[in-house]
Amino acid sequence: MTGGVIRVGVAGAAGRVGQAICAGVEAAGDLVLAGRADPALDTPLASILGDCDVVVDFTRPDTALDNALACVTAGVHVVIGTTGFDPAPLAERRGPGNAFLAPNFAIGAVLMMRFAVEASRHMARAEIIELHHDAKLDAPSGTARRTAELMEGDVPIHSVRLPGLVAHQEVILGDVGQTLTIRHDSTDRTSFVPGVLLAVRHVARQDEPLVVGLERLLFPDAA
Amino acid sequence: MTGGVIRVGVAGAAGRVGQAICAGVEAAGDLVLAGRADPALDTPLASILGDCDVVVDFTRPDTALDNALACVTAGVHVVIGTTGFDPAPLAERRGPGNAFLAPNFAIGAVLMMRFAVEASRHMARAEIIELHHDAKLDAPSGTARRTAELMEGDVPIHSVRLPGLVAHQEVILGDVGQTLTIRHDSTDRTSFVPGVLLAVRHVARQDEPLVVGLERLLFPDAA
Amino acid sequence: MTGGVIRVGVAGAAGRVGQAICAGVEAAGDLVLAGRADPALDTPLASILGDCDVVVDFTRPDTALDNALACVTAGVHVVIGTTGFDPAPLAERRGPGNAFLAPNFAIGAVLMMRFAVEASRHMARAEIIELHHDAKLDAPSGTARRTAELMEGDVPIHSVRLPGLVAHQEVILGDVGQTLTIRHDSTDRTSFVPGVLLAVRHVARQDEPLVVGLERLLFPDAA
Amino acid sequence: MTGGVIRVGVAGAAGRVGQAICAGVEAAGDLVLAGRADPALDTPLASILGDCDVVVDFTRPDTALDNALACVTAGVHVVIGTTGFDPAPLAERRGPGNAFLAPNFAIGAVLMMRFAVEASRHMARAEIIELHHDAKLDAPSGTARRTAELMEGDVPIHSVRLPGLVAHQEVILGDVGQTLTIRHDSTDRTSFVPGVLLAVRHVARQDEPLVVGLERLLFPDAA
Repeated sequence: MTGGVIRVGVAGAAGRVGQAICAGVEAAGDLVLAGRADPALDTPLASILGDCDVVVDFTRPDTALDNALACVTAGVHVVIGTTGFDPAPLAERRGPGNAFLAPNFAIGAVLMMRFAVEASRHMARAEIIELHHDAKLDAPSGTARRTAELMEGDVPIHSVRLPGLVAHQEVILGDVGQTLTIRHDSTDRTSFVPGVLLAVRHVARQDEPLVVGLERLLFPDAA
Repeated sequence: MTGGVIRVGVAGAAGRVGQAICAGVEAAGDLVLAGRADPALDTPLASILGDCDVVVDFTRPDTALDNALACVTAGVHVVIGTTGFDPAPLAERRGPGNAFLAPNFAIGAVLMMRFAVEASRHMARAEIIELHHDAKLDAPSGTARRTAELMEGDVPIHSVRLPGLVAHQEVILGDVGQTLTIRHDSTDRTSFVPGVLLAVRHVARQDEPLVVGLERLLFPDAA
Repeated sequence: MTGGVIRVGVAGAAGRVGQAICAGVEAAGDLVLAGRADPALDTPLASILGDCDVVVDFTRPDTALDNALACVTAGVHVVIGTTGFDPAPLAERRGPGNAFLAPNFAIGAVLMMRFAVEASRHMARAEIIELHHDAKLDAPSGTARRTAELMEGDVPIHSVRLPGLVAHQEVILGDVGQTLTIRHDSTDRTSFVPGVLLAVRHVARQDEPLVVGLERLLFPDAA
Repeated sequence: MTGGVIRVGVAGAAGRVGQAICAGVEAAGDLVLAGRADPALDTPLASILGDCDVVVDFTRPDTALDNALACVTAGVHVVIGTTGFDPAPLAERRGPGNAFLAPNFAIGAVLMMRFAVEASRHMARAEIIELHHDAKLDAPSGTARRTAELMEGDVPIHSVRLPGLVAHQEVILGDVGQTLTIRHDSTDRTSFVPGVLLAVRHVARQDEPLVVGLERLLFPDAA
């Protein structure tokens, strides 16, 4: 780091997600955008590593692991949003850099799942309603299935598919004389940006070479 | 009527519903409670008819028709909340009194159904979520089934059953870039009282001997 | 018209709104995109008029009236989404074409306002909650103010401003033992497209030279 | 305890709240109702103490402390729902019994406040909407004020008062592209019963002579 400011490189900078992350980094007072790597920009990751404290990788399953190993070996921390590859090699210490990986960087969605799980231990019963645009082919959504698996008890899932919806999930818990409802609404595809920036600020401080899951940053004391 | 005040008798006055109606009549400035008929009170309907402009009947399927015929023949209007009998004999003029009957006196529920039907003509697709306490045995609810039948298009229904819920229905309509949601929440069993009082105030003015359905009062110009 | 298909021209076709309308027309089986007029495309409106049954105008306050008069005089109907000019000259018959104008083409928002007004005649009291992204400077929103003005009774408005919100309004009506909630959620700026296409299909049939307001198409029998 | 079953006495057993607790105890398989104390029943607390493992006190501010001291001195644990007195004397060990006190026994409301506070550390901004029946005189509600005080940042509160509402609170948190909503609905005055029974089952195990607040049972590991 240079004077408390974190120098951030973005791998996959030319993609739609990468562009949103570049914009988020540039808008943050404590971060500077130190480099953009992307085949479409004719800029390989290796050429920007020397300028970065942290690299954010939103590339592809077949490149993410090599990118991450290059980072940690060179002493650059890496925050990974790419999914679909086995991150096990990063769990062994390969170099001075740390790796952080999350399948879901939407802070509100991670909070919703966490609160739903906690509440299910104290309320009698629960049901989930997930609502998505009608172009979504699968039902129920992966988030709804994972939420139900983590909660206590048997939790029915209802899937609503309508034009005009974006991506929404509501967990309703009931007990004598009361209900508790926890709802997450995604209204824009940039919803992952605050979670990525949170990880960028924390990755240097983690004790382990690899940490997986935004909940590890949001609830560091939880089991 | 006496000086613009309507004299109201209640048949089934000792029941839970009848008591709520009596309380509602007594709280209304333009109505007076003129009599309470009920076997439990040793007071037959015939003994109060002479004091009433309108009788409200929440009794039983096997008594409601005889009660109503006695009223209209005697020139007393009758508002009927009892269901489970055939009201066809009331459709012929039997006497100077009018009869009004509704299966559902909750104004908000009738408005919800009406708006859902209207909106379904103008929005691309819709789904219904009905939510009830977990002691409710049937699913989907009768109101949800009737709403879906009246709406345009194929409308899926989701049934949520949880302790702590009372009786709720949500109709979500979607189209490009927007959703419209119409929701009714019943929070207390007295929700039928305003609809009954509305009918008491209108029954003398109706042109036909029998009118069925609160929507006829709420939307008099509709087809 | 040619064989039942409506030929549609778009004035302001190069703007963000105009592009969304062009895409909507092209996706509709009963409409064909007959011309795109825009200074940015070096295509004046006059050059496409001969190919059009209906023109949609989303331009600017200083050009909309001249555009509309040119259309109706030439026997081309015009649907106008431009606001901020006085449409009074269009109310006199100027030629064989009709003009339709609306300040709000979001069908769901117009339905919400209409239902809120109707329900306010039958429920005891109401409050409005309008929720918008935190970049919206004014509060309460124009839609909330207009809704409250049209409703019966005194209707308080609450304004919520948060990042992550788009544009939402909820009207809650309460009476004994029940509430009725009518909510509109705008989730995308294309929410006006279905309303514009509805007007395109109706404008040839209207009896008057100028009709104002989408509610005139949605509720033709209302006062 | 006798064979794993907890013997429960209720002080204030003739009141509306006391009756609901008696019914809740009788419906629970692991609890037995060992005594009902109330002036209206001519049964003083002293006369039932010998039969009880735990006493639940919903009496009055001027009797609750003496009742609790009598319990703990006699080795009977006490769960106190009475508010408006200073419980400080119970914080010193007076006898073998423990005391547990909470101002709010509605588990869902305590979870809502807790989750709102946690989420406010991770989301950019928040607002609270509390909705109550129109007979509620104060605004904002005490729960809303306490929630806002405990949350990070400046949290505006909106108060909705309508007939047909019961007691509801919604906390909306927003950040880039998303919102998280946490809502509690009280639908019946028996909503405190599960929280009281939870405390009855835990009070024997607590390390300190006095524990205050249901959150201490729901989140034992929290600071």
